Amino acid sequence: MTIAIEKQYESLTEEGAVLYAKELNFFPPDAELECREIGDGNLNYVFYIKELSGDKSLIIKQALPYAKVVGESWPLTLKRAAIEANALKKHAEFAAGLVPTVYAIDEVLAITVMEDLSHLKIAREGLIELESYPNLSKHIGKYLAQTLFHTSDFGLHPFEKKKLVSEFSNPELCKITEDLIFTDPFFDKETNDFEPLLREAVKAIWNNGTLKLEVAKLKNSFMTEAEALLHGDLHTGSIFASETETKVIDPEFAFYGPIGFDVGLFLANLIVQTVTRENDKRVVILNHIQQTWEIFSSEFSELWKTSSHPFKDTEGYKEYILDKIFSDTLGFAGCELIRRTIGLAHVKDLDSIEDDNQRINFKKQTLQIGEALILKRYEICSIDEVFGLLERFRK
Amino acid sequence: MTIAIEKQYESLTEEGAVLYAKELNFFPPDAELECREIGDGNLNYVFYIKELSGDKSLIIKQALPYAKVVGESWPLTLKRAAIEANALKKHAEFAAGLVPTVYAIDEVLAITVMEDLSHLKIAREGLIELESYPNLSKHIGKYLAQTLFHTSDFGLHPFEKKKLVSEFSNPELCKITEDLIFTDPFFDKETNDFEPLLREAVKAIWNNGTLKLEVAKLKNSFMTEAEALLHGDLHTGSIFASETETKVIDPEFAFYGPIGFDVGLFLANLIVQTVTRENDKRVVILNHIQQTWEIFSSEFSELWKTSSHPFKDTEGYKEYILDKIFSDTLGFAGCELIRRTIGLAHVKDLDSIEDDNQRINFKKQTLQIGEALILKRYEICSIDEVFGLLERFRK
Repeated sequence: MTIAIEKQYESLTEEGAVLYAKELNFFPPDAELECREIGDGNLNYVFYIKELSGDKSLIIKQALPYAKVVGESWPLTLKRAAIEANALKKHAEFAAGLVPTVYAIDEVLAITVMEDLSHLKIAREGLIELESYPNLSKHIGKYLAQTLFHTSDFGLHPFEKKKLVSEFSNPELCKITEDLIFTDPFFDKETNDFEPLLREAVKAIWNNGTLKLEVAKLKNSFMTEAEALLHGDLHTGSIFASETETKVIDPEFAFYGPIGFDVGLFLANLIVQTVTRENDKRVVILNHIQQTWEIFSSEFSELWKTSSHPFKDTEGYKEYILDKIFSDTLGFAGCELIRRTIGLAHVKDLDSIEDDNQRINFKKQTLQIGEALILKRYEICSIDEVFGLLERFRK
Repeated sequence: MTIAIEKQYESLTEEGAVLYAKELNFFPPDAELECREIGDGNLNYVFYIKELSGDKSLIIKQALPYAKVVGESWPLTLKRAAIEANALKKHAEFAAGLVPTVYAIDEVLAITVMEDLSHLKIAREGLIELESYPNLSKHIGKYLAQTLFHTSDFGLHPFEKKKLVSEFSNPELCKITEDLIFTDPFFDKETNDFEPLLREAVKAIWNNGTLKLEVAKLKNSFMTEAEALLHGDLHTGSIFASETETKVIDPEFAFYGPIGFDVGLFLANLIVQTVTRENDKRVVILNHIQQTWEIFSSEFSELWKTSSHPFKDTEGYKEYILDKIFSDTLGFAGCELIRRTIGLAHVKDLDSIEDDNQRINFKKQTLQIGEALILKRYEICSIDEVFGLLERFRK
C-alpha cells in the first residue's frame, strides 16, 4: 500500500528555491548556491540561482495565484505556468535558440525551471537606452515565421493542430487581452489610465463609431480565429536581447489565435520607438520594422513550399493568407498602440519622457497612428505605406 | 476493498439492447419489450424499443467503431457518440422541441438513449415525395438562430464559450468534412464519384483556379473560425419532420465552426429541390429558402438585443456579423452542392432520377449553381439575388 500525499501549491521562498534547485541534479551535488528573487512580484516569482564557485545558473519561475495591478489584487489561474512552459517547449521545436530552454515543469507548484538569460537585457529597456540590436528584427521575423507557420494548418496535420488548440485553451489570460486591448480603451472604463491633457483625444476615440466598429471586428477575429499557436503578448518587454542574441520569453498568454496578433504587437512596440526617436536612431527602428515583415513573410513563404496542405499550390492562396496576416497585423498593432497610451498597461518608452509637452505630443501621435492603422488596414499594402503613414503624423 | 471491473465497449445485439433498456427504468418493470435494429449499419446501430402493450418507446443509438463507405471499412472514433449526445443536450437548452430529448448517455458503450421519433419521416425522403412541411423553414430558421447565437461569443461568457470549444473538439469528424466537402471534389481524387457524362464539367472544376482559390478560403474559414457550436452536418437527411413537427438529429459532426456552415448546408439541400421541382412545387421550396434566412436573421437580431457583448450597440456591428454569415452561407452552400453531385456522398434527390438526360441536366445545374454561389458570395446581398441566380441556370 502506498500512502499518497497530495502535493499542494505553496509559494517558494529563496531557501525553498535553493532546495528545489538541488533536487534537479542540474548543479554538482556539493555545489553551494546563491539565490535572488528578481521578479517584479506582480504575477510571478523569478528566482535566479547560481553556483558560488562555478558558472552554472538557472531560473526558477513560479506563478503566483493572483495578479497585482494598480494596487489591486485579483486571482489568476496557476495553469498559466504550464501554458507558458509548454508554449516555450513547443516553440523551441521550431525556433530553437530564440526561446529559453525549459529544464523542468512542475504543474502543481506552477514552476518552470529554465535557462538563465540574465546576461541579456529586456529589449524595451535597451531600445529606450538607444542600444543597438542589429539582429533583433532578423531573429523575431524568423521566430514569428517558424512558430506560427509550424503550428498552423499549413504546417500541421489537422489532428495534431486541433490537439494543440485544446491544449492551449487559455480563457483567463485571453480575457485580459479581450478586455484591456480590445474593449476598455474604447469605452469610458475605470481600468483606463491617461493623462488629463489627453482627455479630448480619448473622448474622440470613445465617440468614433467607425473606429469602434473596426475594433469590434478585430476583437471578433481575436476571439474566433484559431490560426496558430501565438505567443500572445509579444511586446518588446517579452524579449531578452543583446547585440548577438534574441530570446522570446513569457508566453503565458499563448493560445490559438490570429497570426497577425503576434506580428502586430511586436511592430506596434517598435512603432512607439519611431515616435520617440529622431534621425539615424529612428531609421534603425524603421529598418527593424521593414526587416521584421520581410523576414517573416519570406521565411513563411519558404516554409509554405514544404506544406502538405492540399491547396498550397492553388494560385493566389499563399498571397491571400499573407495579405490577411498583413492587414490583421496593422489592425492589431493599432489596438496595441492605443491601449499602451490610454489603457491600463502603459509602456516606459512613453511614460518615462519627462518633458510634458513632448510626452503628450508623442502620446497623441501613438493614438493617431493607432487609429489610422486600424481604419486603413485593408488599404495599406506595404511597409513603405506604413512608413508614409508614420511620417504624416510626425510633428 | 472494491474490485473495479473496467467496463469495455462491445456492440449491442437486439437482446442486449432490450436488457439495457430495462435497466433504465424508463418502461414499467414488467413491460414486455419489442426491439428492432433500424439503422443503416454503416456507422451506428439504432435500436427501436417499444412496449408490446403500451405506448412508450425509445431509441438506443450506438456508435460502431468503424465506418463502412463504398464497401470499405475504416476505423472511426467512438467519441463521436458523446459529442452527438452532448450537442443534442446543449442545443436543447436553446431549441427545446426541435431536437430529440436525450434520456441517457453511456460513453464507454458509445450509447445515447433518446426520444423515439419514428412517427416522423426524414425530411429528405418527404421532400423527394413532394410532401408538405409548412413548418420546416420556420423551425429550422429558429433552430439555427437559437443554437448558433447562444453558443457564440454574443450569447456566452468567454470562459463558458472556450470551455465548449474544447469540449466539442472533434478532429476526426471534422477531417471527414475537410476532405469530402472542401478538398476531394476539387481535385482528381479516388473518393470522387460522378457519372461519365459529367466528366467534362468535373474536369472544368478541377482546372478552375479561381474557384479553387475561393474554396481554399472557405476551407480555411471552416478550419479556423470557432464562431458557434455547429450541428456540422445539417442536410435534409439530418432532419425528421411532419406537417407540424421538426426535429434535428445526428449532430455527430458538431464542433465550433463558422455559423454560415450550418445555414449553408441546409440551404444547399433545399436548392437541390429547387432544381428537381417545377412550378408550384418549386415555389414551396423557394419560400422555404427565403423563410429560413428571414427567420434565422430576424431571430438572431432579436437575440442580439439580449447580448452582453461590449460592442453589441456599436453601429453596424450586428449587420457586419450577419453579412459575414450570409456570404459564408452562400459559399458553404456552393461547396455542399458540388460535393453532393460529384463527391463521395451523393443525395437521393438527384441520384434517384431515372431519366438519364434529366438527371445529368440537374446535376450540371447543381454544379453551376454551386460554383456561382462560391464565386459570387460577396456580391450577392439578398435571397432574391440567390433566386435570380437559380433562375439563370434553369434549362
